[in-house]
Amino acid sequence: MTRWFEGKVKSICQNSIEAALEHQNTLTKPAGSLGRLEQLAGQFAGWQSQPHPTLNHLSVSVFAADHGVCAQGVSAFPQSVTGQMIVNFLEGGAAISVLSHGLGADLRVLNMGTVDPVPQRYQSHEQLENHQIAAGSADFSQGFAMSEQQLTQCFSAARDHVSGLGARDLFIGGEMGIGNTSSASALYAALLSLPAADVVGRGSGIDDAGLKRKIQVINTALALHKASLNDPYQVLRALGGLEIAALVASYIACAQRGIPVLVDGFICTAAALLAVKLNAGVRHWLLFSHQSAEAAHSRALAALEAQPLLDLGMRLGEGSGAAVAVPLIQSALSLHNRMASFAQAGVSQGA
Amino acid sequence: MTRWFEGKVKSICQNSIEAALEHQNTLTKPAGSLGRLEQLAGQFAGWQSQPHPTLNHLSVSVFAADHGVCAQGVSAFPQSVTGQMIVNFLEGGAAISVLSHGLGADLRVLNMGTVDPVPQRYQSHEQLENHQIAAGSADFSQGFAMSEQQLTQCFSAARDHVSGLGARDLFIGGEMGIGNTSSASALYAALLSLPAADVVGRGSGIDDAGLKRKIQVINTALALHKASLNDPYQVLRALGGLEIAALVASYIACAQRGIPVLVDGFICTAAALLAVKLNAGVRHWLLFSHQSAEAAHSRALAALEAQPLLDLGMRLGEGSGAAVAVPLIQSALSLHNRMASFAQAGVSQGA
Repeated sequence: MTRWFEGKVKSICQNSIEAALEHQNTLTKPAGSLGRLEQLAGQFAGWQSQPHPTLNHLSVSVFAADHGVCAQGVSAFPQSVTGQMIVNFLEGGAAISVLSHGLGADLRVLNMGTVDPVPQRYQSHEQLENHQIAAGSADFSQGFAMSEQQLTQCFSAARDHVSGLGARDLFIGGEMGIGNTSSASALYAALLSLPAADVVGRGSGIDDAGLKRKIQVINTALALHKASLNDPYQVLRALGGLEIAALVASYIACAQRGIPVLVDGFICTAAALLAVKLNAGVRHWLLFSHQSAEAAHSRALAALEAQPLLDLGMRLGEGSGAAVAVPLIQSALSLHNRMASFAQAGVSQGA
Repeated sequence: MTRWFEGKVKSICQNSIEAALEHQNTLTKPAGSLGRLEQLAGQFAGWQSQPHPTLNHLSVSVFAADHGVCAQGVSAFPQSVTGQMIVNFLEGGAAISVLSHGLGADLRVLNMGTVDPVPQRYQSHEQLENHQIAAGSADFSQGFAMSEQQLTQCFSAARDHVSGLGARDLFIGGEMGIGNTSSASALYAALLSLPAADVVGRGSGIDDAGLKRKIQVINTALALHKASLNDPYQVLRALGGLEIAALVASYIACAQRGIPVLVDGFICTAAALLAVKLNAGVRHWLLFSHQSAEAAHSRALAALEAQPLLDLGMRLGEGSGAAVAVPLIQSALSLHNRMASFAQAGVSQGA
């Protein structure tokens, strides 16, 4: 039986890509001189099945959850921060709130499961989906991070969220979860067969002792879950988090519905890698926004043959790196649609 | 006697930089996690002498001129394109026109000297300054590109242009000039003591034979002007172009008036290098927007200890790469000014 997330992704219109790239060559500039911006115009043409794509409807959905692995002392921040940041997202004070507002994006926050419940007065906030599937994932160094049922619930919630968004030109998934760089590092180690020391970084800022603990925790987990490491779905259940699972499913659902995804940094790329392992076609709908300052991100990007748009030393998460990259796409599409052709402008073309 | 362009640049407010960076550490994110965006907020604080800088008034000034060296067959486009593109800038169809419009920038076009004069009906266009100092520079492989008087005129025109702009938060200088990658390459060879083969690229798209000619032309010019190569002002007069000279002076004038400059790509970086050789303090007012696809640009950036914001394989000129980078600065300042602090949001701070 095929599971929903293994279903075919929407096909990409090659004719529109070709038409867009031909149009680029008529514009008043040396051929190819807009570099990556010309490629972006072509990619969006293929995604939107039309040679003059536009970017009007942008969704930013931030998935939040807590991580049982925090019991091992792997984070510089207390777990209560995940819940506090959900409120900060809704109140407009977080980085992704400020950036989403600036972009006119539709910002949604999905609480997949925090240790502290979202305060009563925010539970019916119009930007919040309060799923609260569990009070955080379980400690993955001691057992599976999620039950089969919890993982299924995360997947369904994210799929339904994406189908509820309606027509969108671009989707950014963000994440918030104290401890989630440990989960992402463990996922990278498992999925890319890398030693723990190669995939672990300082996350939100742990010290040397914390870094050492993080490596030990991941080694313990890799040994514990050895029997599950050949099946990406079980890898996710073993080592992932509730918000990472939701990201994976949201990316797959976007690809199936024909919404291109702008992938954020370290955590989101782990979700992207899982989405592609579960459904290879998803790769065609992913655009990578930035190279994170977190170690191992470049190895994951290489495994996905991804060339991120930006490299600004960011490592904040929330979808912030992706949001910062959006204006590059807007510039690319605006140049594509508004520049004059050689014929229109009466400019002589090169040899 | 001190020449005007050797006069002191405006000083930068270190207290404002420190205050801005301290403010960054109070915001709801791991310290340093916005990477380069935090540095940008600090830099603009220093430039604007206040801890909460803003970017409201952006100038884009495109300097255009023709190059006598085109007689040597170094460009893929005919020289008439320079004049045609001036019209395209004014009509809104060029890349920099589209980008400036999107940014709400004040776009000005300065014709420093073209082979074909600007058509009569555009000469009083409100966005045009029609200096027409000469019908292009002279062929630098046969003699000096500019007379002493022409160079002085270019410098004065650009200085007066900048002082006429009034208060600006950021200045982008763009350039248009068929043949000007040859001039910029020759300047790099002279200023960085590099062999011609290391500084020459395909510009707007010449073939192998053209590339070979370009190298020969630069070698001829370096030998011809050997006696002038120790004096940057004479290097500019020998190998530069009217629009490059104007760029150099505009950068210096901006630094003297306290307007930060966002430097575009290959040609503009040659102008930046000259500006810094003529007046070392100018370096403090320069921000580098992007790594161009043109060869040798990275060597010049390294010589200036510059880390460009973007690397998108662009090589169009006109100031387009700088314009594409502006939204990164807008994001940086908007995050700096609008994010909540830990105290405001009631979020627990890390260890």
